Amino acid sequence: MKRNIITVPIRKVEGAGSTMEQDLLAVEEPLEIRLNGKNVAITMRTPGNDRELAAGFLFTEGIVKDRGQISSVSVTDRNVAAVSLVDETGIDFERLERHFYMSSSCGVCGKASIQALEAAECPMLDRSQPHVDSAVIHRLPDTLRARQAVFDRTGGLHAAALFDVRGELLDVREDVGRHNALDKLIGAAFLDGKTPLGRHILLVSGRASFELVQKALMAGIAVMAAVGAPSSLAVEVALRYGMTLAGFVREGRFNVYSGEGRVIPCRLSEASGPSSS
Amino acid sequence: MKRNIITVPIRKVEGAGSTMEQDLLAVEEPLEIRLNGKNVAITMRTPGNDRELAAGFLFTEGIVKDRGQISSVSVTDRNVAAVSLVDETGIDFERLERHFYMSSSCGVCGKASIQALEAAECPMLDRSQPHVDSAVIHRLPDTLRARQAVFDRTGGLHAAALFDVRGELLDVREDVGRHNALDKLIGAAFLDGKTPLGRHILLVSGRASFELVQKALMAGIAVMAAVGAPSSLAVEVALRYGMTLAGFVREGRFNVYSGEGRVIPCRLSEASGPSSS
Repeated sequence: MKRNIITVPIRKVEGAGSTMEQDLLAVEEPLEIRLNGKNVAITMRTPGNDRELAAGFLFTEGIVKDRGQISSVSVTDRNVAAVSLVDETGIDFERLERHFYMSSSCGVCGKASIQALEAAECPMLDRSQPHVDSAVIHRLPDTLRARQAVFDRTGGLHAAALFDVRGELLDVREDVGRHNALDKLIGAAFLDGKTPLGRHILLVSGRASFELVQKALMAGIAVMAAVGAPSSLAVEVALRYGMTLAGFVREGRFNVYSGEGRVIPCRLSEASGPSSS
Repeated sequence: MKRNIITVPIRKVEGAGSTMEQDLLAVEEPLEIRLNGKNVAITMRTPGNDRELAAGFLFTEGIVKDRGQISSVSVTDRNVAAVSLVDETGIDFERLERHFYMSSSCGVCGKASIQALEAAECPMLDRSQPHVDSAVIHRLPDTLRARQAVFDRTGGLHAAALFDVRGELLDVREDVGRHNALDKLIGAAFLDGKTPLGRHILLVSGRASFELVQKALMAGIAVMAAVGAPSSLAVEVALRYGMTLAGFVREGRFNVYSGEGRVIPCRLSEASGPSSS
């Protein structure tokens, strides 16, 4: 049984107070899928059921049509699933190559690991700044929601928003894809010559995955907050590059997974309502 | 201004009753990103801010480092954003090709459109079956949640679950990636020789995107329910292939976006609690 949950130390902030606690994170790691020895895909997944993932991927992508085509699926390494075919006839490897040449904007494509971030010369952050009042972090989701209510009448859009360190909303982008919302937000700043964004706070409406943290780091964002949970790899990357990563930012609470030195205790007079029990 | 929201007719089911209504959907369409004439990525996005998306993608993926490297970003077609560089020096197109050769399991990679589904010989569903009582659909999320509570103590996992037409939970998979959860679920059935899954119901814990509907269709799933919203393209594909797609399945309500002929009115005596006003 592979570990699919890990325990990490966090600072849990509730209203104006905070405590050190242990939190559970879903593990996120790359899985390389090989077909007759050829690498055909890498996906960021939670370990476990990797044989099923490899077979399911090949089937749902239309590469393998029938159970009988597969002679074996073996997990040869922690993060490699190797599928062997009875016969390569009918598998168009050239089409497969074209097929996977294309890519979504989801970051994991071709970046299976932290090493790839290093190859991309992802900058280390200045760990000494900026400082953000925890009351500011408490207020971020409400500020975003007030703006989103105008846009998202579908309930189907992810949002990424940029704030200054006082919690002023500077810019928002929404998209069906969370990575696209973030790319649009960062792209707007980049085209305006405003990157790196070392004096800003990023809020994402959902979870903090590796891909989102990676994209934020490329833009030099030092403080990132998510309404949902972070993954293990998101926290690992945030720790390595010195990013402040807060998760579960909602209802007057949040957890700080890395870089807590930037978060300064809440000035109660400025906090909007998170002090209820 | 591009359309990023569309209106579609739906059947809104509340408890034992239902009405025809209009609903708003977030638009999902492919965007092809070109760099000096070369196709470097395709992403499924909500139209709008496409210049920013293209520039942001190239920047956050580490391909372009500096604003000054870009001479222009133009949207040459509804779904193509072309980025021109001042100078190709320093851009390693070969690395870029390797970079995007890899792929996540997210379905959109290399499948930018419905045409690709046709190329993959995605089967048309039998529109006459199975029939599912709406009380069964109302109960799905609670059944999944009861099972998930054991697994997901992190709040960071997506789930995909397979039910029979009476609402019995057959199998569940969880993952940080929703596409992986679904690939694992379908992969398990595929390895057991149980596909196609034409007599089953699929429930996904989040939104219904194009990629998830596409994967479900490849497995022959005729009835798909999502706790969250569907995208426009998810609905379009479901309509085309004859899938029953229900969204916002929660708290005794759901919306049917396609294939409502399979949903039979709720037998109140069997419904668990959705009859409150």
